[in-house]
Amino acid sequence: MELIFLGTGAGVPSKQRNVSSVALSMLQELNSVWLFDCGEATQHQILHTSIKPRKINKIFITHLHGDHIFGLPGFLSSRSFQGGEDPLTIYGPKGIQQFVETSLGVSDTHLNYSLLFVEIENNMVVKDSHFSVHIQALDHAIPSFGFRIMEQDKPGELLVNKLKDIGIKPGPIYKQIKENEVVVTEAGRKIYRKDVIGQDKKGRVVAILGDTRYSTNYISLVKDADVLVHEATFSHDKSILAKRYFHSTTTQAAELAKKGNCKRLILTHISSRYQKEENEQLLQEAQMIFPHTEIAYDFSSFLIN
Amino acid sequence: MELIFLGTGAGVPSKQRNVSSVALSMLQELNSVWLFDCGEATQHQILHTSIKPRKINKIFITHLHGDHIFGLPGFLSSRSFQGGEDPLTIYGPKGIQQFVETSLGVSDTHLNYSLLFVEIENNMVVKDSHFSVHIQALDHAIPSFGFRIMEQDKPGELLVNKLKDIGIKPGPIYKQIKENEVVVTEAGRKIYRKDVIGQDKKGRVVAILGDTRYSTNYISLVKDADVLVHEATFSHDKSILAKRYFHSTTTQAAELAKKGNCKRLILTHISSRYQKEENEQLLQEAQMIFPHTEIAYDFSSFLIN
Repeated sequence: MELIFLGTGAGVPSKQRNVSSVALSMLQELNSVWLFDCGEATQHQILHTSIKPRKINKIFITHLHGDHIFGLPGFLSSRSFQGGEDPLTIYGPKGIQQFVETSLGVSDTHLNYSLLFVEIENNMVVKDSHFSVHIQALDHAIPSFGFRIMEQDKPGELLVNKLKDIGIKPGPIYKQIKENEVVVTEAGRKIYRKDVIGQDKKGRVVAILGDTRYSTNYISLVKDADVLVHEATFSHDKSILAKRYFHSTTTQAAELAKKGNCKRLILTHISSRYQKEENEQLLQEAQMIFPHTEIAYDFSSFLIN
Repeated sequence: MELIFLGTGAGVPSKQRNVSSVALSMLQELNSVWLFDCGEATQHQILHTSIKPRKINKIFITHLHGDHIFGLPGFLSSRSFQGGEDPLTIYGPKGIQQFVETSLGVSDTHLNYSLLFVEIENNMVVKDSHFSVHIQALDHAIPSFGFRIMEQDKPGELLVNKLKDIGIKPGPIYKQIKENEVVVTEAGRKIYRKDVIGQDKKGRVVAILGDTRYSTNYISLVKDADVLVHEATFSHDKSILAKRYFHSTTTQAAELAKKGNCKRLILTHISSRYQKEENEQLLQEAQMIFPHTEIAYDFSSFLIN
């Protein structure tokens, strides 16, 4: 899994940061890429990455502000133009379907793939073959949502020494044991998998939150996440502004990462009021509270092991 | 007057060319800028020019294909965010208002300026203080329009030698004569402006056509234009494709410029199938027919004297 940031600014594009979009590449796991938000010119940003639009089969929209959705019609059109034929599902708040369908309808755009819409609500769960996505409503000026993307736990490793101890030698039977609850050996002996396999390997967890005020209500949403992606529209000293405009500060994001026992925090959605040279300051504010913080720039990528 | 090309590609953005938009800067004439089409990321392109979004007070939309309109909602929002307060009028085919209002409505975007819509039709004329815009329907897959932007003729220069000959010496009276049809001198003599002024100075003409098949029906629309901006989606050898997809070739654009007795032709809306090194070839094809042809790249600008 890899997070690739396509737009890390807030509200309006600047020369440094485009408006919001982040890709969660799961080529190894699912042979697909999920997109979270799709601000204007997301398709332009993708041109500068190795992401193939046809591999994007799910788009999650945190909320309907223009800097998070105005790139959707263009992205969807170009995906079709470039030969994308696999169905694509958009998960977003009420209104997203009207926006997309009006845009495609007015412009007489016909897609060569099925486009599906799922209207998201608080406490909804989206399930995929190896992942489930838990959705929670956040505190913003309009309905906004956070996503907890949870990989299924994987079965543990075979306990080879234990198998040898009970006289089962390495060979094709090891694969059978791993894949079945119970296997009968040639000698007629029953081997139960649970007796010869280690603990399940915990699936990875990525939490991606839309625009939001700080709240401890999200602790369970981000709990133990391998990576928390959180907005930091404002610096620490602007907490009053942040509250007024339904946003968060650097240190508020860090507080949530700390309280949620996250492994890493990535700050994004940085206001264009902050110049290039101020990024280090924003980062340090958060690191004072949560050391494993990083700040995302356009095209930053983060491997999640 | 200056034409500044913001997007010169066709259909989808590429690394070389963004989707359609061209600005007609008339800062000296009107203290404003007019935009023709607004493909996705037009506002991003503007960041790399000296154009101020608040100076753009008219946007003309040639047709509703996505590569010509998907940048509108973002541009309009950012213009407001950046302090634009002057009214803005969008002239476009039926449907543009629905697209813009749905986009702004769904995204809960509130503009700090008045946004007006004028639905354009064949043979319509838009009048401004110093300019009139004649609109003609073109031949495209959906309703598409061409614009003939005509500057008002300006009064000629005072014939100073003639004034001296009849005994009127230079002084404040020259200004009065220039600004009034008739002036009575202190000596009681009537001076008629028409007798002492040269020929009217012809206003400049710029013709900007939307996506279209080649047609001689547009000769009057482009007649004697100082500049004709014409699409050239395809090279000369692709005239069958051009016709099928309701577009034009390089040489068809040149034919129209020639038949219309235009002074200059600028080719734009170049398909992304053509690589950088093929531009020279496209240009030469057109120049064989109409030597005063140029090819537009993103950020090309052309002064119109």
